[in-house]
Amino acid sequence: MARPLKLQARQVIASKKHSVVREEILNAAVQLFAERGYRAVSMDDVAAALQYTKSVIYYYFKNKNEILWQIYVLSSERYSADIQPLLAQEESSAVKLRRMIRVHAMNVMNHRDWTAVYNNESSELTASQRQALNRMNRDYDAMFESVFQRGVAEGVFREIPVHVAVGGILGMCNWLQAWYNDKGPLSSEQIADFFANLLEHGYSAGTPQAA
Amino acid sequence: MARPLKLQARQVIASKKHSVVREEILNAAVQLFAERGYRAVSMDDVAAALQYTKSVIYYYFKNKNEILWQIYVLSSERYSADIQPLLAQEESSAVKLRRMIRVHAMNVMNHRDWTAVYNNESSELTASQRQALNRMNRDYDAMFESVFQRGVAEGVFREIPVHVAVGGILGMCNWLQAWYNDKGPLSSEQIADFFANLLEHGYSAGTPQAA
Repeated sequence: MARPLKLQARQVIASKKHSVVREEILNAAVQLFAERGYRAVSMDDVAAALQYTKSVIYYYFKNKNEILWQIYVLSSERYSADIQPLLAQEESSAVKLRRMIRVHAMNVMNHRDWTAVYNNESSELTASQRQALNRMNRDYDAMFESVFQRGVAEGVFREIPVHVAVGGILGMCNWLQAWYNDKGPLSSEQIADFFANLLEHGYSAGTPQAA
Repeated sequence: MARPLKLQARQVIASKKHSVVREEILNAAVQLFAERGYRAVSMDDVAAALQYTKSVIYYYFKNKNEILWQIYVLSSERYSADIQPLLAQEESSAVKLRRMIRVHAMNVMNHRDWTAVYNNESSELTASQRQALNRMNRDYDAMFESVFQRGVAEGVFREIPVHVAVGGILGMCNWLQAWYNDKGPLSSEQIADFFANLLEHGYSAGTPQAA
């Protein structure tokens, strides 16, 4: 197979929308970072994966750190944008939390490379980026915590310290990044349902327990 | 404060037991890898953390990869050694699984730096090390899966596909590495109890559901 010529920045920029190229670069970078680890990947590698010259990549991103940070920002925005409407629904705490768990779990599975980078590479961020990330994570967790807390107050959820419950719920889902296989026998939707059910009712088949 | 002179290999080796020095090196490396990421840490950094010369480190470990691999092997051995006796106990599936969850969660919390490296750095291993790691992980998961499967067969656990249930259980615990704070208000033992309970009975306070 003939190797295609690499495209120069102005050819690429002339022929495609900026936002499309940005997205291409981010998707290629996410995949490489998830496979090999952020530090092992160079701007050259990202360019090569897309058959672009390095100048194209630098036209869109100042450096590798800017790519990494954009991955964090866009991941975080996607997660929040999917949960916020659920939080606003007129539903019982039980229904709300179940839906939020499903959506969170499906996001982890359906954007697995993004989540792998998000979960593993925060030590590569600058101190101020890490601070901003902590704030984004706290805001995200707070949406789950508010629903959990309300459910406890209403007596429909058991009295588990809220950060332990939410840490456990999100942790179970986040860890899907390490083992979910999109070629496996179960769809992300089926696994999300099993998780929502396991978290709500436990694995015990027996009659439980007062709280 | 006067800076102590760095110790040469033969001074160190003459004055301490080999196994003690090996352990010192591994503990220092684990802490640095967990803080900064494996790739960002040099053999010089490990030596400097212990006030040893680099020759001491190289006396015990051929290279940085060997240190990393030993972290995986020792972590894995510790986890398995703590679970195996529980598996062998004459107990109901429910009691067994509850104990196994508690011990696993406590191991994550009480060896947090080790778990951080174990969870985040597998892309830095060689292909054959990764294969060996996958086998060790499968053997470990299999202990949980056998108990879960037996519980389902006995009708005491709900019919959740076993790798989904065990993936969820271990995932909730593994994620503790990302948020557990040993200076927080709850001890690792208390959090492990909340998790074991949440997994067994769910967060819902209501009467459940047949399986």
